[in-house]
Amino acid sequence: MPPLAASPGAVQAELIGLDWGTSSVRAMLVGAEGRVLAEKAQPWGITRLPEGGFPAAFAALAGEWRSALPGLPCLACGMVGSRQGWVEAPYCEAPAGADAIAAMLAEVPGAGLRIVPGVVQRGDRPDVMRGEETQVVGALGDAARGLAVLPGTHSKWVRVEAGRIAGFRTFMTGEVFATLRGHTILGAFAPETAAEDAAFARGVLAAHQSDEGLAGLLFSARALVLTDRLEPGGAIAFLSGLLIGDEIRTASTAFAEAGVVPVLIGEAALCDRYRLAFDLCGIAARVAPPGAAAAGLWRIARHAGLIAGGSV
Amino acid sequence: MPPLAASPGAVQAELIGLDWGTSSVRAMLVGAEGRVLAEKAQPWGITRLPEGGFPAAFAALAGEWRSALPGLPCLACGMVGSRQGWVEAPYCEAPAGADAIAAMLAEVPGAGLRIVPGVVQRGDRPDVMRGEETQVVGALGDAARGLAVLPGTHSKWVRVEAGRIAGFRTFMTGEVFATLRGHTILGAFAPETAAEDAAFARGVLAAHQSDEGLAGLLFSARALVLTDRLEPGGAIAFLSGLLIGDEIRTASTAFAEAGVVPVLIGEAALCDRYRLAFDLCGIAARVAPPGAAAAGLWRIARHAGLIAGGSV
Repeated sequence: MPPLAASPGAVQAELIGLDWGTSSVRAMLVGAEGRVLAEKAQPWGITRLPEGGFPAAFAALAGEWRSALPGLPCLACGMVGSRQGWVEAPYCEAPAGADAIAAMLAEVPGAGLRIVPGVVQRGDRPDVMRGEETQVVGALGDAARGLAVLPGTHSKWVRVEAGRIAGFRTFMTGEVFATLRGHTILGAFAPETAAEDAAFARGVLAAHQSDEGLAGLLFSARALVLTDRLEPGGAIAFLSGLLIGDEIRTASTAFAEAGVVPVLIGEAALCDRYRLAFDLCGIAARVAPPGAAAAGLWRIARHAGLIAGGSV
Repeated sequence: MPPLAASPGAVQAELIGLDWGTSSVRAMLVGAEGRVLAEKAQPWGITRLPEGGFPAAFAALAGEWRSALPGLPCLACGMVGSRQGWVEAPYCEAPAGADAIAAMLAEVPGAGLRIVPGVVQRGDRPDVMRGEETQVVGALGDAARGLAVLPGTHSKWVRVEAGRIAGFRTFMTGEVFATLRGHTILGAFAPETAAEDAAFARGVLAAHQSDEGLAGLLFSARALVLTDRLEPGGAIAFLSGLLIGDEIRTASTAFAEAGVVPVLIGEAALCDRYRLAFDLCGIAARVAPPGAAAAGLWRIARHAGLIAGGSV
């Protein structure tokens, strides 16, 4: 295992980090500044654990590293800390910086693992996140001000002020898309074709330029096909564009700030799709380099004093 | 069969009308002014026909009446005239009055049945309806101006100008609600409880007072429950309120006109729910009396010269 060797010049492992979500888990051997030295992924999300449950999954993922490098701290983020997870890590209240989050790590008794709490926003528009706080801490680093956008099943828009997660909002864009495609007349169109990109752009613009609600826009995909104004093969891409365009339009109203460039964090292809949508809406966004979760876990571990160097 | 007898003083049957949709069909013996003298319903929508298909279903529904009252015209509206129906009745272009619709009836060869065309709206915001045009003609009668709202799987908002269907828009409110309840985390809450009405009202107001998109509002149902600000038993009603409130907010922007009272057409319980939602949004709406489809079929049949009395 070459990356484990602490040979001169090599980056030394400082942390075993786990990004443990609902449907999958990724274990990473993390070096200084959150650099990923090795990683393993399994489809063992908290709803589909292997036999033996959390302890067995953790042993299978991190056991070898822990034997080879005894004493290395282990830190997990994501749904593993929810009520349905291994041990519940109570939410940290927004506004929350890396220090506040690090002060609330939950310990899994006897397992040698700590879990990062999610963040809750109280007030009239409550919201919650678990796992995204770590990615934001990793991707935005020490930035005092920023706007992170994490597209996905439940997209999150996260505003950072004074170096802390100050406010955020969840959009069910990905889940609504998958559900509509799978279970409504909108999914009954022909398979996607090459017209896809143009249809996606058309959907983004239709939603972004309209002040119409989604329920009305959605039917337009079908009506455009029925009236020969949209190729059936482009309907799904158009639908995807509508949903993302609607998210950007409504979220921008609440979150956009002059001079703050939205930073996209997540899976590369999805981030590219969102960046294209932002472009179409006249907003320059940038995609964060991969490794946000590892960097966030590393930063939080430093704040918690788990890694030498203490508070960053 | 007392309603069939043409005894002095009794209302005479003038038409056999069928409201034939995707999932069910209703056959009505219709007298003067669209009064329903007798009716039969079957779950034989165009996607679930009995053995023998359309001819067998039509014979089972209308056969006795046709034998007892030979020569009575038969007129159907709804998805039975779509490409997937019995015979396609090409769309009538909006703006369309009862006369224009009546001029485009499609005949089912050899069956003794005519089918009302749907209405298509062309242009940048195309849309289609099939069946609703007949209900609007029935419920608004000779009104020169009006706004009909037909809640359901695909809600329609229909503007009548100069006595014709001038413009309309479809909202997938009912389908989106059923899909989200059935296939997303939003449906995973406890069964509905007595808190339902209050939660519904809260959802309506949250959507109506917000300029947020649906994808963001949807997650708020879950977040409110997670932060103990909404009882789990009220989450589904809150979701229903959100969707209806969002429809009313966005549709009103496009369709509301001073002095025009929206007329709700459809199933009584659903119309009552919408009327409550309109009230909460500060809009006085009224519910049309039942029988809109029968009245519309009768009026269209008169315009088509199928019923003595000619053009109304």
